[in-house]
Amino acid sequence: MTEQREFVSKVDLKARERALQILRERFYEVLKDVMNGKPPKLIIRKRTLSNTIYDSERGLLLLGEATFERSFVDLREARKFMQTMLMASMIFEALSNGEYPTIRDLYYRGKHTIRFRKLPSKTVAEENTWDEQSESDSVIRDIEVHTNVLREEMLILSKEKGKVVGEMKIRSGDDVIDLSKMGHGAYSIEPTPDLIEFIDVDADFVLVVEKDAVFQQLHRIGFWKKHKAILITSAGQPDRATRRFVRRLNEELGLPVYILSDSDPYGYYIYSVFKTGSITLSYESERLATPKARFLGVMMTDIFGSSKLGKKPYLADEERRNYIIKAKDRDIKRAKELKEYPWFKSERWQVELDEFLNRKVKLEIEALASKGLRFLSDRYIPEKIQIGDWIA
Amino acid sequence: MTEQREFVSKVDLKARERALQILRERFYEVLKDVMNGKPPKLIIRKRTLSNTIYDSERGLLLLGEATFERSFVDLREARKFMQTMLMASMIFEALSNGEYPTIRDLYYRGKHTIRFRKLPSKTVAEENTWDEQSESDSVIRDIEVHTNVLREEMLILSKEKGKVVGEMKIRSGDDVIDLSKMGHGAYSIEPTPDLIEFIDVDADFVLVVEKDAVFQQLHRIGFWKKHKAILITSAGQPDRATRRFVRRLNEELGLPVYILSDSDPYGYYIYSVFKTGSITLSYESERLATPKARFLGVMMTDIFGSSKLGKKPYLADEERRNYIIKAKDRDIKRAKELKEYPWFKSERWQVELDEFLNRKVKLEIEALASKGLRFLSDRYIPEKIQIGDWIA
Repeated sequence: MTEQREFVSKVDLKARERALQILRERFYEVLKDVMNGKPPKLIIRKRTLSNTIYDSERGLLLLGEATFERSFVDLREARKFMQTMLMASMIFEALSNGEYPTIRDLYYRGKHTIRFRKLPSKTVAEENTWDEQSESDSVIRDIEVHTNVLREEMLILSKEKGKVVGEMKIRSGDDVIDLSKMGHGAYSIEPTPDLIEFIDVDADFVLVVEKDAVFQQLHRIGFWKKHKAILITSAGQPDRATRRFVRRLNEELGLPVYILSDSDPYGYYIYSVFKTGSITLSYESERLATPKARFLGVMMTDIFGSSKLGKKPYLADEERRNYIIKAKDRDIKRAKELKEYPWFKSERWQVELDEFLNRKVKLEIEALASKGLRFLSDRYIPEKIQIGDWIA
Repeated sequence: MTEQREFVSKVDLKARERALQILRERFYEVLKDVMNGKPPKLIIRKRTLSNTIYDSERGLLLLGEATFERSFVDLREARKFMQTMLMASMIFEALSNGEYPTIRDLYYRGKHTIRFRKLPSKTVAEENTWDEQSESDSVIRDIEVHTNVLREEMLILSKEKGKVVGEMKIRSGDDVIDLSKMGHGAYSIEPTPDLIEFIDVDADFVLVVEKDAVFQQLHRIGFWKKHKAILITSAGQPDRATRRFVRRLNEELGLPVYILSDSDPYGYYIYSVFKTGSITLSYESERLATPKARFLGVMMTDIFGSSKLGKKPYLADEERRNYIIKAKDRDIKRAKELKEYPWFKSERWQVELDEFLNRKVKLEIEALASKGLRFLSDRYIPEKIQIGDWIA
C-alpha cells in the first residue's frame, strides 16, 4: 500500500488512524475476556423500535439506553457474535491496508463457508458466514453503534447523489474547491462529509431541493447568486452524506436550512428524514439529522390557500386543474402514518396533512416551475422565506 | 428577464440565439403554408423501429430516410399536429424568455383543456392538449428530429447523474474548472455537455464505471492519477448528458473509452447504450453514441477463463463460489435478446453471451473490488487494457 500513499489525501490517513484506534479500544474488551479465559461478549445498544426515542427537546430520533448482550457462548447469539467479530476485523484490516470498501464489498469479502465437525458425532457440517447483505449490513450498524463511529469515518464508501453550488469554498482531500465556480455543473458531495473543511462562506441560507432537475434549473438561472444561497439537491431520498453535509452547514455555520420538495407524503417524508432522521436507523440521527431544518414547501396551503392561516393560494383555479394529480392509495396510507409521528403533531403540520387527506391530491414541484422559473425563483421561494411561511 | 442576464452565462445566450434561429427557419414553412391559404403540414422522419437502421460501417443506430406527413387537415393527425405546434411554440417562448424548462415542465405548461363548438350542432365540446407526459415527450422528440437540434441545445434541462474527475480542465458557463482538483468529491456533468469546452487534457484513456460506489473507490485510491485516466461514472443506465460527454472525449480528443460494468446482460446493455445507442431513440445516436467504445469487463471469461481464448480466470474456485449470483429469468431473456442484436453478433461477444447462457450466473463489479481495491485498480483494469482484452 505504501507506494500508493502518494495518491491519497493526508486527511484520509488521519481519519484511518483515528478509526483504527477507536476500533482497537472498543474491541480490546473482547480480547481481554478471551485472554482471561472468560466467555467473550459484546454489550451493544439495542436498535429496536422500542428503544427508539423521539427527543422532543432536541427534535431528534435517538437510541435509548437499553442494551443487549451478544455472547459467544450463547447458542442464539453465537452466529451473530461471529459475524460481528468477522466484520470488525475486516474493517480493521481494510483501514490498516489503506482500502476503501463499500458495504457491498464487505458483504462479498466476508461471505464464505465455514466447515466444521459436529460434536459428538464428528460429522462434517457447513455454515455460511452470511447469505444476504441485510445480515452483513446489520452487523456494520451494530459496530457503528458499539464504537460510536459512523461507517463513513471508517472510510467505508458508498454511492452519492448529493450536489451543491454556492458562494463558498471547501477543503476536501488535499484540494480547495470553489463551489461558486462550477459552471453549469455542480459539485458532487463526497461520501465522507466529516472530512470536509468549510473555508469561505458568503451565504444567507441553504436551500435543499428534492429534485435534481429543479436544482439544475435554479442553478442555471443563477438563483443562488442572486439570493445568496447554498443550493443543494438530494436527488430524491437523501443519502447519509447529503444529510451530514446539510447538518454541518446548519450547525457549524448557523445557516438556516429550507427544504423544498413535492407536495405529497413522500416529499414531506424527505423533509422529515433531513430533520429528524429515519425511524429504522435512529442511531444515525444524532450526527445526520438537522432538527432545525424548515419545510418551505410545496405546501397544500400553497396550492389551495387557507382561510384558517389567512393564506392566498399561489395557483389559480385553471392552474390547479392542470397541475394537481390524484393521490394514490399508498399516498393516503403514508399521510395517515405521518399524522401519528410526534414530529408531525404540530398544529401547523396537522393543517397540511388534513388538507391533503381531505383533497386527496398532490402536486409536483415541476408544476410550479412550469408557471415560469422566475415565479419559483423570484417570487415563491424568496417570498415564503421572507414572510416566514415555513414549518419549523 | 433582462435583469437576470447578469446571472446567466454568455454561452447560454449564444446557444439560445442559435436554437431560436433554427426553430424559426424550420417552422417558417408551416407559417408560409398558412399565409398562402394552404393546409399546413410538417414532414418529419419516422421514429419507428422499421425506420431504425443499424449502420454497421459507422457502428451506429440511425434513423432511416422514411418520413411521414403530419397535416392539420388530416383528422388522424390534427391532434398531433396541434400538439407539435403547441410544443414548438412553448420551446420558442422559453428560449426567448431566458427560461430553462424540463420536459416535465413542458408537459405541465402545455397541459390544458380546449373548449370548442362542434359543427354542425354547435354543442360545446372539450379536448385536452395532452393527458400523459408520454404524449408531450413524444412531440419533443419529433421536434428534435425535425430541427436536428437536441433538446439540450434548446436549453431544456434534466436531472443528471454523470460524474467525472481527471487531469483536465473544462470551461463550463463562465467558469474554468480543474477536474483534477475535486478533492474527494467529483464534478457533476451539466445537462448541456455540448456547451462544455475542453481546455487542458493530460490523459491516456477514459474509464467509464457503471457503478457510482466503485467510481468513489477508484477515485479515492487515486486510480486516475496513477494511470492517467479520465474517470467517469454513469451511476447506472447512462443519461444523455453523460453519453454526449463521453462521445466528445472520444471524438474530439481521440481518447480510447473503456466501459466497466457488472457482468450481466444489464451491464452489457449499458455498454451497448454508450456504444450504439438505445433502440427506441435511435435518432439520438448520431450525436450521443460512441461507436468506438470498448467493453473492458467484467466478462464472463474473466470469471471462468476460456480455453478457446487461452484466458485464465481472474477468480479462484473459492472466490467464484462466494461471489457469483444465480441469473434471474429476466437476465436470461435479456441475454437471448442481446445475442440477436447486430452489434452483439461478433464472435467475441457470442462467446461471452453463450458462456452466460451456459452458466446462468452473473457477477457484480463489487465482488472484484472485494478481492481488494488494488486488485481492481492495479491489476485487473490496467492489465486488461495493456493486453487488449476488451471487446471493440
